[in-house]
Amino acid sequence: MPDRARRIPEATVARLPVYLRSLAELLDEKESTVSSERLAEMAGVNAAKVRKDLSYLGSYGTRGVGYDVEYLLFQMSRELGLTHDWPVVIMGAGNLGQALANYGGFTERGFPVAALIDADPDKVGRQYHGVQVHHVDELPRLAEEKGIAIGIIATPASAAQAVADQLLEAGIRSILNFAPAVITVPPEASLRKVDLALELQILSFYQQHAPDPAR
Amino acid sequence: MPDRARRIPEATVARLPVYLRSLAELLDEKESTVSSERLAEMAGVNAAKVRKDLSYLGSYGTRGVGYDVEYLLFQMSRELGLTHDWPVVIMGAGNLGQALANYGGFTERGFPVAALIDADPDKVGRQYHGVQVHHVDELPRLAEEKGIAIGIIATPASAAQAVADQLLEAGIRSILNFAPAVITVPPEASLRKVDLALELQILSFYQQHAPDPAR
Repeated sequence: MPDRARRIPEATVARLPVYLRSLAELLDEKESTVSSERLAEMAGVNAAKVRKDLSYLGSYGTRGVGYDVEYLLFQMSRELGLTHDWPVVIMGAGNLGQALANYGGFTERGFPVAALIDADPDKVGRQYHGVQVHHVDELPRLAEEKGIAIGIIATPASAAQAVADQLLEAGIRSILNFAPAVITVPPEASLRKVDLALELQILSFYQQHAPDPAR
Repeated sequence: MPDRARRIPEATVARLPVYLRSLAELLDEKESTVSSERLAEMAGVNAAKVRKDLSYLGSYGTRGVGYDVEYLLFQMSRELGLTHDWPVVIMGAGNLGQALANYGGFTERGFPVAALIDADPDKVGRQYHGVQVHHVDELPRLAEEKGIAIGIIATPASAAQAVADQLLEAGIRSILNFAPAVITVPPEASLRKVDLALELQILSFYQQHAPDPAR
């Protein structure tokens, strides 16, 4: 498995969840097959790229018929490791941490929030949206007991690197960083960054170039 | 301008903010020129794609020298419409709305939060992180007075479509949706969706395929 994973380009991996979402929509619409053209349109890429990406999963489709939606969905879920739950811990129980603990999309898609962690003694012991806040000293024990796979950083930028180090020390090597800070992790860890302003910059491009600007 | 905008592929537009961030880092490091290979590595794409993307902006670089960092940064900021501010309104003053109002990355990158909007009369009139909460009836007036260009949806999924309609009625045609709901807008509007679970799915791929799994 690791060998195959290494052969799938990063850019392809990043597109798999987008295909997955499109396939789930098709299944909702009771579509049993899908062409690479249709899937490409839904995912916002070109059809040749879809075919290439899916070939990494060993999926080639049938000429004139396309891909079997349900089977491709299963195959992709398995490849993405979504056939079982991955408990997550949220570092930081401020507004963002609380919002993420309450975000319906996580549990629904197999990422139950196992715990919130905060440095503030006033917050430790509280519950937000049914998720208990723990002190950072409890992180190694929680990580082991609850099988926590992924750590989400929802602290201020200034605390982000220290919090990443705490996650790594607790054996959590997949990190999603929401803090507007650059952090570094060793090569054996996986780090993704959510940049909330990036999407605004894309919108501002279209606003700037709108044929009939509102302003 | 509209013609040129239409000729830049959507996928290229989506990569421009990523290049922009890389260029800002290079400038911080006092680098005056950058090769397409270096920029490609920083942005996680291949060098041929970088050259193609930048050619849409009319940037071709100099053989053996590369691109002028400062000029390319200026050119890209201009193209993305980032040479002036775009005030945003946040719909929903719950945890997520408050977290976004407090997100340092917005104002810093030219997207000041002009107002929060909430349906709850108990919240109207309050301030969170210096941003005032208004009733939705005030949206058209605020949009005009404050020149609001972009609306951010931070409501529960069930309210997302109604709130999108309110933004459109107020003349705000660029929408960023954080709610885990599918919403539709007319073709003249721009809609982007932030899917917070998508990055988790990418991490779960690497977790699943880790050579020496932690679990």
